[in-house]
Amino acid sequence: MAETRTGADGANAFDLDTYLKEVTREVDRALDRYLPSATVKPATLHKAMRYSMFAGGKRMRPALCVAAAEACGANRAQAMPLACAVECIHTYSLIHDDLPAMDNDDFRRGKPTNHKVFGEGIAILAGDALLTRAFEIAAQCRGWRRYSHKDVIIEIAEAAGSKELVGGQVADLEGEGKDLTAPQLRYIHERKTSALIRCSVRLGGISANCNRTQLLALTDFGHYVGLAFQVIDDILDVTRSTEQLGKTAGKDAAARKATYPAIVGLEKSRKIARDLTRKAYGALDAFHGRATALQALATYLLNREH
Amino acid sequence: MAETRTGADGANAFDLDTYLKEVTREVDRALDRYLPSATVKPATLHKAMRYSMFAGGKRMRPALCVAAAEACGANRAQAMPLACAVECIHTYSLIHDDLPAMDNDDFRRGKPTNHKVFGEGIAILAGDALLTRAFEIAAQCRGWRRYSHKDVIIEIAEAAGSKELVGGQVADLEGEGKDLTAPQLRYIHERKTSALIRCSVRLGGISANCNRTQLLALTDFGHYVGLAFQVIDDILDVTRSTEQLGKTAGKDAAARKATYPAIVGLEKSRKIARDLTRKAYGALDAFHGRATALQALATYLLNREH
Repeated sequence: MAETRTGADGANAFDLDTYLKEVTREVDRALDRYLPSATVKPATLHKAMRYSMFAGGKRMRPALCVAAAEACGANRAQAMPLACAVECIHTYSLIHDDLPAMDNDDFRRGKPTNHKVFGEGIAILAGDALLTRAFEIAAQCRGWRRYSHKDVIIEIAEAAGSKELVGGQVADLEGEGKDLTAPQLRYIHERKTSALIRCSVRLGGISANCNRTQLLALTDFGHYVGLAFQVIDDILDVTRSTEQLGKTAGKDAAARKATYPAIVGLEKSRKIARDLTRKAYGALDAFHGRATALQALATYLLNREH
Repeated sequence: MAETRTGADGANAFDLDTYLKEVTREVDRALDRYLPSATVKPATLHKAMRYSMFAGGKRMRPALCVAAAEACGANRAQAMPLACAVECIHTYSLIHDDLPAMDNDDFRRGKPTNHKVFGEGIAILAGDALLTRAFEIAAQCRGWRRYSHKDVIIEIAEAAGSKELVGGQVADLEGEGKDLTAPQLRYIHERKTSALIRCSVRLGGISANCNRTQLLALTDFGHYVGLAFQVIDDILDVTRSTEQLGKTAGKDAAARKATYPAIVGLEKSRKIARDLTRKAYGALDAFHGRATALQALATYLLNREH
């Protein structure tokens, strides 16, 4: 178990590195159980689903889900099914976003994208199957004391739906080559990135049978962390090399995509990310110091280099 | 209301034509409520979703769903949400199947396919959003006395998932240009077509709080009707012109896709379709004459000309 250690300066230092390693291992093990084996017919499809699910993702959404559950007094295992459901949705969206008809990316996390390995047809279908599987995983959960399957499925469907995740990708596609304003860009970020991150955090709370105050605090936290996450992504796209990112760098500028650095400059973008992260910290007050992992994750996301 | 009329020969003649018109009108009205308006942001996406949802589909799956509910003593309204959920899944699968990376079809029901009108990127996303919306519609249902949201979501996710609907499309893609055997072709048909039709019929029963015997009978009925449906599709692809079909005819042969007529010949294919339909009729014995609409639908599907 990752522990809160007392550092040299006497302050509590949360060992996020160990925490993330543990969560990743547990999530990987759970996903391996949740996805059909690569030998199950049709094998190509299940191979393609597994290829992207196990392509070295940072498991940030599952980690946020699990950490939110812990902040509400639950254990990791309780949050694991919904954490995996969210990761399936995230992975499906990456597979589809990488397609030639969308962002046309050849690399993701240093590996060829799904359609480069399996072809476009299979990549589209692998995404479809992962999206479907996400709902099935959520439905197969035993249940929660304060929340119903109905609540949980609606929660996921809204975050992944035409007004949020998919809508954000559409707005992103349509914004290419246009001079967007900062509010227009924020509209895209809120949908394309923040919605599913907020959903991950809320589902963690729901797994833990959190109360209404906690759910609202988690909603705020997820919202701000999600926005900060995308601003930082934009910054990294400008400042890091392809090798460092594991995906094609400078893609946004090449595709004439609006980014925070392009609209407000690099320094202002960094300030926006810091301010959003500070707002996220603020939302954690409701947990009276029991949200150490969530706080450490927000700091980590702000300072990450890839 | 469509009525059972006494024909000139004294036998009961079910007025399927009126029945289908009524169901289609009611399904269209419900779908119009279930889908975001075309003015809701992002408008392109919602327009694209609506374009394919209202492109003149025959609403066979909703009709089967509603007729199954009626056979179990429920009214149409009770089955309408799940009938619409299934139609969203069906439409999403058509949009994705028509893409250049899959069947590469320019026309569907006499109209340009989704990607021909909106571009590939939007077509993929419109499909994704319809799949997601299907689960949301099902989750938003008030509930059923004998079945839970958990049951219903799992039912839909299994039928639409990697081992059924999506798996069938993968097997279909992979079978192109290969000499398939009749059992291999049946494997594809069971997944690509029969699974969702069986699901539609079962969901009708579930909407009506059917008992276990009824659900098993509906499962058999859906299975056989679904298989017959695809055999007839194969036959029509060989025997009808593009204009009559409203989609490109002879596509299967052009893509070197295995079909029943290609493997066993036209006459044997027709016999297989008749035999399957007879088996479907047999499953309806469990309803003691209360499944008139289901029986009429099976006959209609057998004798259809497009």
